[in-house]
Amino acid sequence: MARAYLDHASSSILRPAALEAMLPYLAGHPGDPGRIHQEGRTTRVAVENAREQVAALFGARPREVVFTATGTESVNTAIWGALARARAGDGHRHVVTTAVEHSAVLEACARATDDCTVVGVDPAGRFAAGDVIAAFGDDTALVSVQLANHEVGTIQTAVAEIVAAARERDITVHVDGCAAAGHLPVHFIELGADLCSVDGQPWGAPKGVAALLVRRGLRFPPFVVGGAQERARRGGLEDVPAIVGFGVAAAELAGDGLAREAERARTFTDAIATAATSVPGVVRFGDPESRLPNLVCVGIEGVEAEPVVLGLDQHGVAVHSGSSCSSELLEPSPVLQAMGVDADRSLRVSVGWCTTEEDVDTFATAFPAVVTRLRGLRNAPTNER
Amino acid sequence: MARAYLDHASSSILRPAALEAMLPYLAGHPGDPGRIHQEGRTTRVAVENAREQVAALFGARPREVVFTATGTESVNTAIWGALARARAGDGHRHVVTTAVEHSAVLEACARATDDCTVVGVDPAGRFAAGDVIAAFGDDTALVSVQLANHEVGTIQTAVAEIVAAARERDITVHVDGCAAAGHLPVHFIELGADLCSVDGQPWGAPKGVAALLVRRGLRFPPFVVGGAQERARRGGLEDVPAIVGFGVAAAELAGDGLAREAERARTFTDAIATAATSVPGVVRFGDPESRLPNLVCVGIEGVEAEPVVLGLDQHGVAVHSGSSCSSELLEPSPVLQAMGVDADRSLRVSVGWCTTEEDVDTFATAFPAVVTRLRGLRNAPTNER
Repeated sequence: MARAYLDHASSSILRPAALEAMLPYLAGHPGDPGRIHQEGRTTRVAVENAREQVAALFGARPREVVFTATGTESVNTAIWGALARARAGDGHRHVVTTAVEHSAVLEACARATDDCTVVGVDPAGRFAAGDVIAAFGDDTALVSVQLANHEVGTIQTAVAEIVAAARERDITVHVDGCAAAGHLPVHFIELGADLCSVDGQPWGAPKGVAALLVRRGLRFPPFVVGGAQERARRGGLEDVPAIVGFGVAAAELAGDGLAREAERARTFTDAIATAATSVPGVVRFGDPESRLPNLVCVGIEGVEAEPVVLGLDQHGVAVHSGSSCSSELLEPSPVLQAMGVDADRSLRVSVGWCTTEEDVDTFATAFPAVVTRLRGLRNAPTNER
Repeated sequence: MARAYLDHASSSILRPAALEAMLPYLAGHPGDPGRIHQEGRTTRVAVENAREQVAALFGARPREVVFTATGTESVNTAIWGALARARAGDGHRHVVTTAVEHSAVLEACARATDDCTVVGVDPAGRFAAGDVIAAFGDDTALVSVQLANHEVGTIQTAVAEIVAAARERDITVHVDGCAAAGHLPVHFIELGADLCSVDGQPWGAPKGVAALLVRRGLRFPPFVVGGAQERARRGGLEDVPAIVGFGVAAAELAGDGLAREAERARTFTDAIATAATSVPGVVRFGDPESRLPNLVCVGIEGVEAEPVVLGLDQHGVAVHSGSSCSSELLEPSPVLQAMGVDADRSLRVSVGWCTTEEDVDTFATAFPAVVTRLRGLRNAPTNER
C-alpha cells in the first residue's frame, strides 16, 4: 500500500535537486571552508554561493545570513544573544513574546530572563499588535513574535506594526519565521526586524541546517562559541553538504517558485479541510483565510488524538497530533490551549513539495472511516457482567 | 595532478559505507523520530540503532549518548550545563582547565564564569595531574581537560588521575575527547568522567553530527532548549541521515578497526615526520611517543607558515597552519604559545582513513622544495639601489 505522508511540517523529504547538489560534497570535497588550501577554498565558495541563494529567498544580504544546525538553534541564538547584549549594555532584561510561539521561543525566553510577558491570542490564534506593544516597558530588551503559527497556520498580520514599534523604542526584535519560511514570502530587509529565524527542512531543504538572519550593523554575540566560523557568529565546523543543499532548495523557490508551490499546497489543504470537516463534530482551527498554505489543524469531537493518528497510520496516512515539539510527550498543545480549544483532540495535516492528489484522496477516504470507527467503539455497549 | 589531501583533522572525507547507509534517509524516509506514525517509528529505530553503534565505540551506554551538531556544540553543552547546574545547586563557579584546550573549551569557560584557572603545560604540551588537581578549590564547579591535543597530538596521560580526583571531590569533570575520538580508544565508563565530548567527522563520519556523553544518573540541562528530542537533553529536529552515518562510521572502527587504522596512520605520520625533520631547521612539536597516530605538527625555522601552506598547495599538498579554530584569523596558535614554541612557523599535517602512500610521498617531495625555495627568496640579495 502506498503511504500518504502528510506530516511535512514535522519533517519533509529532501528535494532531489538539493540531494544532487549535495552528493559531490558528501562523497568528496573534504575541505574545511576556513582553510586557505584549494580544498578549503572550494568549500568556501560553495558555502558562500549557498549563502547568496538563501539570502535571495529571504530578502536578506548574504552577510546577514548565519547558518545554524536547526531552527531551534537559530531561535536559541537570537534570544540568548539579545539578552546577553542587553546585559552587557543598558541592563534591560524584560522580554515580550506571545502564547502561541514555538516551544523553542518560550523555553529560550524562560531561560534567558525571569521577567517575561507572554501576550495572549484570540480563538484563531492571532495576537494583536496593540496587546504586544502595550506590554513594552522601559526595561524591555527583546520582543519575539512569530510570522505564522506552526500548529494552526494562522498568519500573524500584526508583525509589521510590532516590528516598527519595537525599532522605534530601540527594543531588539526577533521574528520567528520558521513556520512561514518556504511557504509565505519572507523579506528580511522589508520586515525591518533585527533578527529572523528561518528553517528549510519542512519545505525540502536538508536536515541539519537552518539560519538566523542578523540585521546588518547589529553586533551580535555567538551562542555556540569556540571558532571563527560564520564570521565569528557561530563556532563549529560548517556542515558544507547541508548548507549546499539548503542553497539549492532555496533557489528552487526563487522567482515564482514559492507562489506556485504555495498555490498547489493550498488546493491540497483546502481539499483536506473540506474532507475532514464534512465529518460531523470536526472543526478547523486557526484563521481560515489568513493562513499558511501547507497545513490544516482540526479538532475532533468525541475521540482522543492519539488513536486517530494510529488509526490513520494503519490506513496508510501519516499525520501529527499533540504538541509540536515532540509527540513523545503527548502533552496538550500550549498553542491550542492559548486559543481556548480542546488540545487533546487536534490533528495537524501538512503537505509538502512532493504531496500528490492521491495522498489527499487517501486521507479523505481514511479519515471519516477512522473517526467513525473510534466513535463507534466508544459508544458501543460493553459486555459488563 | 592528483592532490595529496593531508588536513583530515580539520575536515575529512565521508566513509563510503556511511554515505551508503545515509542515502535512503537522504532520498526518502521523511519521518520525524518523535512521531508515532510508521515513518516516525522507522527513523526512531534508525536513530537508536546509530546511538548503540556510537555508544559501543566509545564504551558508553546508549542512553548516555546525546547527539549534537558539532564537537563545538558538544563542548558548549558540557561547559554551559555544568555551570548552570552549579548555579542552581551549591553556587560554585570556579572552573579549572588547561592552556592547550580547543578554543571551544576556553571560550565556553570564559563565557560561563569569571573565575577560571588555566593550568599551563610543558614544552611537549602536557599538563601535569598535580598542577590541575592543585588548582581545585572549595568553590570549583568544573574541570575540563582534553584527552589528546588537536594541534600537536600529545596524549594527556594525566587525565585518569584528574578524573579520579575530581570525582572524589564532587567536581563535575568534562573530558574533551574530540581530537582523540576515532584515533585512540575512548572508553567512557572506564574513564569515569561525568561528561565527554566526541566528534566523528575527522575520521570519516558525516559533518553535522557529534555527541556529548553524559554519565548515567547525571541530571543535565539542555543547552539548546525547545524540544523533547534526545530525551529532553537537546532541542531541535534530529539530523537523521547524519546520525545514521555517524553510527555506521563508528561501527567500522569497532573490534580491531580502530587499532588497525591507527597503526596505518602512525606509519604515515612517522614517514611525514621523518621527511619533514630531514630538512634542516625543522623540528617536531608535541610528545614524540605518547601522541595521536593521525597528525604531525612541525615548526619551520626561517619562514612564515602561510607561504608554506600556499607553496605546498601549489605542489598539490593540502595541510594546515595557524590556529585550529579557523585559519581565516591567521593568528598565532594559543596551544603552541602555551608550549613556548614559535607559533608563527608551525604546520599541522594530518592523515585520514583514505590517505595513501602516494599522498605521503607527494608531501615528502614537495615539503623540502617549498621550504628551500622560500628560504632562498628570503636570503636572496635584493636589487636595492
